[in-house]
Amino acid sequence: MRQQAHGGNLAWAAALAGCPPEAILDFSASISPLGPPNSAIAAIASQMGNLRHYPDPNYSELRLALSHFHQMPPEWILPGNGSAELLTLAGRDLAELAATMLITPAFGDYYRTLAAYNAKVLEFPLNLRDADNSSLVNSPLSCLVDFGQRTLDKGLLLNNPHNPTGKLFSREAILPYLEQFALVVVDEAFMDFLHPDEEQSLIPVVQEYANLVVLRSLTKFYSLPGLRLGYAIAHPDRLRHWQLWRDPWPVNTLAAAAAVAALKDREFQEQTWKWLPPTRNQLFQGLIAIPGLQPFESAANFLLVESQQSSSQLQQQLLQNHQILIRDCLSFKELGDRFLRVAVLSESDNQRLLTALKES
Amino acid sequence: MRQQAHGGNLAWAAALAGCPPEAILDFSASISPLGPPNSAIAAIASQMGNLRHYPDPNYSELRLALSHFHQMPPEWILPGNGSAELLTLAGRDLAELAATMLITPAFGDYYRTLAAYNAKVLEFPLNLRDADNSSLVNSPLSCLVDFGQRTLDKGLLLNNPHNPTGKLFSREAILPYLEQFALVVVDEAFMDFLHPDEEQSLIPVVQEYANLVVLRSLTKFYSLPGLRLGYAIAHPDRLRHWQLWRDPWPVNTLAAAAAVAALKDREFQEQTWKWLPPTRNQLFQGLIAIPGLQPFESAANFLLVESQQSSSQLQQQLLQNHQILIRDCLSFKELGDRFLRVAVLSESDNQRLLTALKES
Repeated sequence: MRQQAHGGNLAWAAALAGCPPEAILDFSASISPLGPPNSAIAAIASQMGNLRHYPDPNYSELRLALSHFHQMPPEWILPGNGSAELLTLAGRDLAELAATMLITPAFGDYYRTLAAYNAKVLEFPLNLRDADNSSLVNSPLSCLVDFGQRTLDKGLLLNNPHNPTGKLFSREAILPYLEQFALVVVDEAFMDFLHPDEEQSLIPVVQEYANLVVLRSLTKFYSLPGLRLGYAIAHPDRLRHWQLWRDPWPVNTLAAAAAVAALKDREFQEQTWKWLPPTRNQLFQGLIAIPGLQPFESAANFLLVESQQSSSQLQQQLLQNHQILIRDCLSFKELGDRFLRVAVLSESDNQRLLTALKES
Repeated sequence: MRQQAHGGNLAWAAALAGCPPEAILDFSASISPLGPPNSAIAAIASQMGNLRHYPDPNYSELRLALSHFHQMPPEWILPGNGSAELLTLAGRDLAELAATMLITPAFGDYYRTLAAYNAKVLEFPLNLRDADNSSLVNSPLSCLVDFGQRTLDKGLLLNNPHNPTGKLFSREAILPYLEQFALVVVDEAFMDFLHPDEEQSLIPVVQEYANLVVLRSLTKFYSLPGLRLGYAIAHPDRLRHWQLWRDPWPVNTLAAAAAVAALKDREFQEQTWKWLPPTRNQLFQGLIAIPGLQPFESAANFLLVESQQSSSQLQQQLLQNHQILIRDCLSFKELGDRFLRVAVLSESDNQRLLTALKES
């Protein structure tokens, strides 16, 4: 069996660990351990009787819920079958431009989506070893400051917070690029992990920039990767265009209902915001105390860790001896075999990881 | 509120009828009244705990179930988010060709998918008023016989059984076109309504023709339009290509599980094959007995009906006076306002339609 580049391939891991997939403790997929919210599961169960009808092709109720959640008019919001589906549509727009600039290391599906439409890719590496390592969060987009190229005919695709580093770019750091690029696509798949007081989403400025696309996901925060639910926020003309490039019912009835419920579940959201920072910090402190491991500060629900030993060997040992799956970073070609990524899970699971790492 | 071109827009209908959407008796969407199968609903319920994991990107279990069902190697099968998603991918292949020939009247989404990639469309009308009207089923593809064009650089997109006429083309009638066209895409969304002894699917010959794509749906037969589940059967090289053009997890976990269960539900399948022919015939006879209505023979779970009065007026009357929704055929531009389409529903519902039509 070939390992999938993306985190969370439990079948592969289970075969290597010699256990059923359910027995794997999965740190490789950056999914919150708190969900899915009961409200979302109840909403799914309540919709079984509606499966015999087509979904509303306008997804009016879902759009309205998103509209309330983000204080945006519904016509600026397009739900999709996971943000990956919308990323693919954005890729087609990006491919119309002279080139697309990627901040690397970049999520593997960015390359797939740009290749799908033969977009030209220009890579700009993040400076991981910033002198001011402690200020990774809210540091400026230094990697782009001196690219010194003509960019008015080009696109920029980045995620914020950045995966796999967990680095958060401030809104102010990105704004200038909206004047300099023909199209800016910001994948905010992990932004909802930040408390509303701290988040740096570009959604509040979308209505000012026709060349801005923000992608969001319900996958990570609400622990619903099996459901496929994401959305794009962008100019209505662009979204109407995208709608013609894809099938009329991309989101199924159950996913739409779960999303509406999850967005309204303030209690679940508060719980997550309360849980993440101290738990992440505890895991960070635990990792930094292990010789040979160097975690990076992160604004998201995962930590990138530099390792003095091979991360793929470490991955194998953890699987075989502890049934623990971590993410090696081989699919991020700039990182190679000396980096790993781990999700922040529950305190006890994080402790199990730390104990296992100490023994490896 | 604007009416959607596609059947089954209950919100629009309910507003016009002045009743809740659930109260509408919907003949406009061609969905079996027998489903969804309990097996599929149970499978969905059993998978709630797995929503916290990404779907298997290979969809191995689903592909295996489809492989058993069709006696085809799994690598020739690609599941999708409804056959509409796969149609869109086929549209990209068709757009590479000099033109695509469409048999008209054609399903509206064919135009959308071909326009999405700027494919050139050539239309070839079906002869609806064939002298031998009773042999619409299994009649040859007469509309294409004498098109007299060079077609080796062109594509052919058709559905079989044909929507909205219900006409069934024999396998033998289509086979010659596989030698004459660069690519033949056959949408068999309604083929499963035919008993295995009578169906005319091209699936058995897919392995002989690299230029053949068969699209199938679980939507209509299993009454699961809200779930979005279809699949393509075609050469593995083509499917690998398509896979790069779209997101890695197009089918959600619940839909994949429901599909596996439905495909194994022989009892539900037998029940449907036993129910449809006599019930359709009864509806046909009831319609032909009403002055001013002329139904066409159909191999599928719907009937096209020619009407001496305006079908959009008739639609409005039926909604306002009887809370019954039929499909006008305005979106099929060749048919216009003198045709309607009705699904075959339960005997009692069909009777309600016939009674209402007699009063209109």
